[in-house]
Amino acid sequence: MRTSRDHVEARGPAVRRVLVAGAGLIGTSIALALREHGVEVRLTDPDPAALRLACELGAGAAHDPSGAEAPADIAVIAAPPAAVPGVLRALQDDGAAHVYTDAASVKDSVVGAADRLGCDMATFVPGHPMGGREKSGPSAARSDLFLGRSWALCPTGKADPSAVAAVTRLARLCGAEPVVLGAAAHDRAVALVSHAPHVASSAVAARLAGGDDTALALAGQGVRDVTRVAGGDPLLWTEILRHNAAPVARVLEEVAADLAAVAGALRATASGGDPGAVRDLLDRGRAGRERIPGKHGAARPQEYAVLPVVIPDEPNALGRLFAAAGEAGINIEDVRIDHSPGLPVGVAQLSVLPAASDALSRALAERGWSVYA
Amino acid sequence: MRTSRDHVEARGPAVRRVLVAGAGLIGTSIALALREHGVEVRLTDPDPAALRLACELGAGAAHDPSGAEAPADIAVIAAPPAAVPGVLRALQDDGAAHVYTDAASVKDSVVGAADRLGCDMATFVPGHPMGGREKSGPSAARSDLFLGRSWALCPTGKADPSAVAAVTRLARLCGAEPVVLGAAAHDRAVALVSHAPHVASSAVAARLAGGDDTALALAGQGVRDVTRVAGGDPLLWTEILRHNAAPVARVLEEVAADLAAVAGALRATASGGDPGAVRDLLDRGRAGRERIPGKHGAARPQEYAVLPVVIPDEPNALGRLFAAAGEAGINIEDVRIDHSPGLPVGVAQLSVLPAASDALSRALAERGWSVYA
Repeated sequence: MRTSRDHVEARGPAVRRVLVAGAGLIGTSIALALREHGVEVRLTDPDPAALRLACELGAGAAHDPSGAEAPADIAVIAAPPAAVPGVLRALQDDGAAHVYTDAASVKDSVVGAADRLGCDMATFVPGHPMGGREKSGPSAARSDLFLGRSWALCPTGKADPSAVAAVTRLARLCGAEPVVLGAAAHDRAVALVSHAPHVASSAVAARLAGGDDTALALAGQGVRDVTRVAGGDPLLWTEILRHNAAPVARVLEEVAADLAAVAGALRATASGGDPGAVRDLLDRGRAGRERIPGKHGAARPQEYAVLPVVIPDEPNALGRLFAAAGEAGINIEDVRIDHSPGLPVGVAQLSVLPAASDALSRALAERGWSVYA
Repeated sequence: MRTSRDHVEARGPAVRRVLVAGAGLIGTSIALALREHGVEVRLTDPDPAALRLACELGAGAAHDPSGAEAPADIAVIAAPPAAVPGVLRALQDDGAAHVYTDAASVKDSVVGAADRLGCDMATFVPGHPMGGREKSGPSAARSDLFLGRSWALCPTGKADPSAVAAVTRLARLCGAEPVVLGAAAHDRAVALVSHAPHVASSAVAARLAGGDDTALALAGQGVRDVTRVAGGDPLLWTEILRHNAAPVARVLEEVAADLAAVAGALRATASGGDPGAVRDLLDRGRAGRERIPGKHGAARPQEYAVLPVVIPDEPNALGRLFAAAGEAGINIEDVRIDHSPGLPVGVAQLSVLPAASDALSRALAERGWSVYA
């Protein structure tokens, strides 16, 4: 665990005291992540039970609204989109912090409303950490919810560079990678990668409501994954979708058209029609799926060669395998272990740069490893 | 590991020798599960490399096609739907087994084609184990792939009760729960809980193909889950969908209509329209999601403790990590690498026996690794 104060101070402006307004899943998770770095966290929430639970979970101490506290370095507003501007204005009126950010899933409408409400846009850096769960509330919070995730920052032209730097630092303290983009671009992006997928998940799940029990008994992992996010809070999600209506509608219309086209092609196969449109969508789906970034951002899965190697179930077998690759001067970019419980062997899927694949295959084979090139 | 012969004999007819035709993901997983119960397994596959790997993984021995082997108790045909009837007929002509089953994802067309091809329907019990992964091939196989899952059995009216009993026994040996239903009812059910969700997943993923890199960088766990199955083999899935065209088309038409309605409602909110249709779909989605049974194939019991460790993007960082674990005398059972775009660090999710988790956490922290216990 990285808890050293040195580390916290090492990069960017100091973030020593943070006020988190909203002790739900997101706010509490941010607070927990900050606490792991020794940041002093104060919490507030309109629901006293949520606030108490978050404090008991170690997320911080309850905020004293009397004004006796010194201003925080940053105030994070972790509230639904419609609530953010009002909370921001109230906190700014109280001088609760030097810098403000939020965590709402939509940004354009929040920025517009905050501006119209007379908020100070120099100290407000709108944000959106890209982590979540289908569960809500402080009890579902995790300090690693944002670990390795992107954290969108959408500073307006009026934002102080020092405010942007402070919120960037906060995102990094939570283990996330800041991604700076405009509010409208953010909203189009999350329509594509979050909001429309959520609605599609709900539409698939909605069909299950009409299935008979025997049909439901055949549900496997696939439909569980596809419909997981449909378990999210309908009230909150209606709110999110309403605030990002046009971008989401555009994606949904395209998805609906693709599904209708596949349905038509499938019906046509009964009278000898060609399933080309079906294959086409599945191909495009796989290509789109592969665009979700893995390691190194730009690198797509197909840019690495994958080498399956049989590994015996012995102490440090993986250590020996990596040592063998190291001896051969080849860097392994990624690894996945397939191991069947109870079996004496497993398979390590080693990802390497394609140019290094043959050399690694030879080097491992020479050292007695069973490689399936 | 449950290997006792007693256990195998205890319930239902003896299943001592099984021939698995098809050493892909499904066939090899069935073979591995049976091997854990001491069942003698022979394997065959048109691809010699797949067959060799499956054998090396401990799934069984290569089948001798000369006819010198005694007939197996059961032959399992783990092949794409269109291939099943031909393989079945050939195996029956050879007298390869006393009882036959298959594992194809569609049943009505397979049963019809097998009947027309003159297969012996008394010894053939069509089956469909409800387990799978988006990866294919024997290296992705797991003996627990069907553990806690349903296994559909669709015996025709001509099936011998003893054949049905034998295949029921085989499904149970793989840890699955047999569900008996007609072939047409099966196909409608899997259209709802598997095939249409797969197409919807592909349609969502297909939109990502047109997104810019910044948008894709915001992808979180939700869209990864929704689109996971879209990573499946397009050729195989086109085949599956073509064999279940009308039931899948019906579900897709309903999903497309729901999505179009939500898109319309969202567009109408711009001019003050009510988002009631949005909320309605999200509510129905949550209700449908809740109908997925928890008992069969719910989240698997966590056999291992998972320890996230931050890994720097340096040559042989994983090698050093495994070496550190090895020095501490702790065997890492599994590893998954999470790496966020552009981030100088990734996260290795190390799976270890729960009893070893604390010791590993301490040992790694002492050696300077950043562990999130």
